[in-house]
Amino acid sequence: MSDTPDSAVRDAVTSGFPRFLDELREWLRIPSVSADPERAADVDRSARWLAESLRRTGFPTVEVWETEGLPAVFAHWPAAEADAPTVLVYGHHDVQPAERGDGWQSDPFQPTEREGRLFARGAADDKGQVYFHTLGVTAHLAATGRTAPAVGLKLLIEGEEESGSPHFPALVRAHAGRLECDAALISDTGMWAADTPTVCTGMRGLIDCQIDLSGPAQDIHSGSFGGAVPNPAEAAATLAAALHDDRRRVTVSGFYDGIVELTEEERRLFAELPFDEAAWLRTAHSGATLGEEGYSTLERIWARPTAEVNGIGGGYQGPGGKTIVPATAQLKLSFRTVAGQDQEKIQQSLREWVAATLPTGVRYELTFWGATRPCLTPLDHPALRSLVRAMGRAFEQPIRFTREGGSGPAADLQDILGVPVLFLGISIPSDGWHAPDEKVEIDLLRKGAEAAAYLWEELGAHPRPATARRPTTPGP
Amino acid sequence: MSDTPDSAVRDAVTSGFPRFLDELREWLRIPSVSADPERAADVDRSARWLAESLRRTGFPTVEVWETEGLPAVFAHWPAAEADAPTVLVYGHHDVQPAERGDGWQSDPFQPTEREGRLFARGAADDKGQVYFHTLGVTAHLAATGRTAPAVGLKLLIEGEEESGSPHFPALVRAHAGRLECDAALISDTGMWAADTPTVCTGMRGLIDCQIDLSGPAQDIHSGSFGGAVPNPAEAAATLAAALHDDRRRVTVSGFYDGIVELTEEERRLFAELPFDEAAWLRTAHSGATLGEEGYSTLERIWARPTAEVNGIGGGYQGPGGKTIVPATAQLKLSFRTVAGQDQEKIQQSLREWVAATLPTGVRYELTFWGATRPCLTPLDHPALRSLVRAMGRAFEQPIRFTREGGSGPAADLQDILGVPVLFLGISIPSDGWHAPDEKVEIDLLRKGAEAAAYLWEELGAHPRPATARRPTTPGP
Ligand SMILES: [Zn+2]
Ligand SMILES: [Zn+2]
Repeated sequence: MSDTPDSAVRDAVTSGFPRFLDELREWLRIPSVSADPERAADVDRSARWLAESLRRTGFPTVEVWETEGLPAVFAHWPAAEADAPTVLVYGHHDVQPAERGDGWQSDPFQPTEREGRLFARGAADDKGQVYFHTLGVTAHLAATGRTAPAVGLKLLIEGEEESGSPHFPALVRAHAGRLECDAALISDTGMWAADTPTVCTGMRGLIDCQIDLSGPAQDIHSGSFGGAVPNPAEAAATLAAALHDDRRRVTVSGFYDGIVELTEEERRLFAELPFDEAAWLRTAHSGATLGEEGYSTLERIWARPTAEVNGIGGGYQGPGGKTIVPATAQLKLSFRTVAGQDQEKIQQSLREWVAATLPTGVRYELTFWGATRPCLTPLDHPALRSLVRAMGRAFEQPIRFTREGGSGPAADLQDILGVPVLFLGISIPSDGWHAPDEKVEIDLLRKGAEAAAYLWEELGAHPRPATARRPTTPGP
Repeated sequence: MSDTPDSAVRDAVTSGFPRFLDELREWLRIPSVSADPERAADVDRSARWLAESLRRTGFPTVEVWETEGLPAVFAHWPAAEADAPTVLVYGHHDVQPAERGDGWQSDPFQPTEREGRLFARGAADDKGQVYFHTLGVTAHLAATGRTAPAVGLKLLIEGEEESGSPHFPALVRAHAGRLECDAALISDTGMWAADTPTVCTGMRGLIDCQIDLSGPAQDIHSGSFGGAVPNPAEAAATLAAALHDDRRRVTVSGFYDGIVELTEEERRLFAELPFDEAAWLRTAHSGATLGEEGYSTLERIWARPTAEVNGIGGGYQGPGGKTIVPATAQLKLSFRTVAGQDQEKIQQSLREWVAATLPTGVRYELTFWGATRPCLTPLDHPALRSLVRAMGRAFEQPIRFTREGGSGPAADLQDILGVPVLFLGISIPSDGWHAPDEKVEIDLLRKGAEAAAYLWEELGAHPRPATARRPTTPGP
């Protein structure tokens, strides 16, 4: 299907790589933490940095799109051919919170290279994976001799993904005309392993909330009052402990309604992956598995909805003891959802569940931080086949299939723009997303750029344009 | 029983009061927080400040007693008469943690007077109540014309009460000879109300512990790993939520074994107190009562054992959401105990309960911060009758009986020294022990000093010594 030799793409990626890496390091130094209101200026700076860099790369149109929250970046590089398909690349330039004291070996916002890995908050999630597209399109043009890509290339890089993308659906709706495309390509996911390249076919959704609980108007002495008034820290615990039943199923009413259940074939494909539970537990930094009865670990993280306590806090947390009944407590919960679940119904059920589960006498406030829908792409879509070929050329290996347990706004693009969603992600499980010592494998950044370059070619219009033909480089 | 007119004591207290209050303010400026290792030097400074002040008051023997933890202060002023009884006054000079940001209207360590109240950490618990004894003995001497008190007066003011008095039993054992006395007098409790003076007859015990829970070796991404590994924040919640059954009884096995149950008479006496639940709830800053089925609020806080979540923490507690499975969580629990419970057995049961209640795959460490035994004094003891008379003279009202829900090392004195334990406390429920805006009623500090002065006289040897007789002041 392609005439450009892979070596041409590889050479172009290699020659652009040092500069690419320097620029990525510069971007990673901007602490664009979207969950922290005090970092809003940094998220803004990150957007402007990216826009400037995309202009340098050659995108004729680059715009910072403001939202009611934090800004996104849009770029467009039209194909020369009128009949070329258009692809919209999605990623995000905001990052998770990170503090050196959380357990980082080096400053999370001072990118540090150790043993072929680049350590920084956002290295894998998602700046590294957004940024390889600059090198990818550059290599695509160099290798094919084109001055414009073989597909119409659009980029939409948002700034609130780590906060649940609260303004993303509105942004996509507002700009639906300019975002028009034939497929969306999400570069915010991972592969099975560095030596087992895979393509992801779906992502879970996310419902993210906080419950603030109040008991006494101030901390009170547990000797004088304890045992006679409700304790909000115990109430927070009551909620968290009631989330799961004995079979580790979520107890929120109707939670499993409408789920697109795993088919026998999918379960078989998952079961055939070279899954080493001991190795997976090491990657998870965990000593044991625990999850929904009747499902394998892969099924639990990829295809089953879950509930998680992300944070709990209340009362005295300093050194030693303090004999109080605390005034307040808080509980941060998140729910992963899968295709078929009704996010709005679940939020309503959750409201009812909190009210019904809490002991009397404890006041509460339930806040939803945002909701992201799940997404699932048909295995036999032609664009997915092109992606698998592009990945195969980059990795020189057969490509297998996975799903992604994490969540992203892929489903919004799917739903609002009415397009299939593809995933080109080169992160691996040990990259430590949302954790201390997040890193990216530098060699996989290179492979990501190559895969993107091949993909634009694979998806490009036929017959191939004359400018792409180079006499000394016959295709494979 | 007494020849000294009450007006003589009152005048002496009034004339010494301004200086007393200035000195107390100075002491309250020392942030002697025993639970915070960084405040150890302040606790030390507090001990030395008190020792110096007791020397100025006239105590012939004043010593700072070092422990393996923080220092206590001992003072002794022998009676002139060989057959006079000896009383050991107990209090503590350490205080609970306090930060301005916790909700204080003024700096907790800058004593501030507002509307007849002195606001500061330790104002009521316990520096104010320790310090009125300096004015009490001074007034006793001035009013009786004595140069030594009518009782042998010993003071033992410890520095680790708010940390569970871990070294107090060893200290009392080591110095049992020098602490020899006929009764211990605890000035670390409260009264029913400013206008309803009471004498307390018992205190609850305390078992104070922390459970540190570990799951993943670091925070991990809940999208990638959530729903398939144990979550220590949920485990902490599981423990906290399992503490009580539906009847609000503590579920730790054998917890209620051996309890000295309330008699019908005690229940009747408690029920006759002018208890206004709505007012009590205001004092508790709470909107509802909740406690062990079958018991009144007063019974729950005074005479029933309880369990309380003092603090819980794990995972992300900053602004917004963070989709992680946290690496660690912690739970601070305390248990109030009553006479008859076996503290050691309960600690062992608690160990077994934690092991049995936790989900598999979560590692934990259980640390006991300390255990304080409960204590109960017979209502008909002659020394208690003297105390009730002294209180009656100070307050010019009948004195009623209560118990104290809080905990103190009273039981150690009772057990190790083999003496009855009395309680002379003038704090009231609104004083906000262990809470922001702790205060003491300035007028009650005056009454405390008076009551102490009367008590030394009431307990003093008979026939009364010639120096105490003053021609112009016949007794009541
Ligand atoms: Zn991401
Ligand atoms: Zn105290």
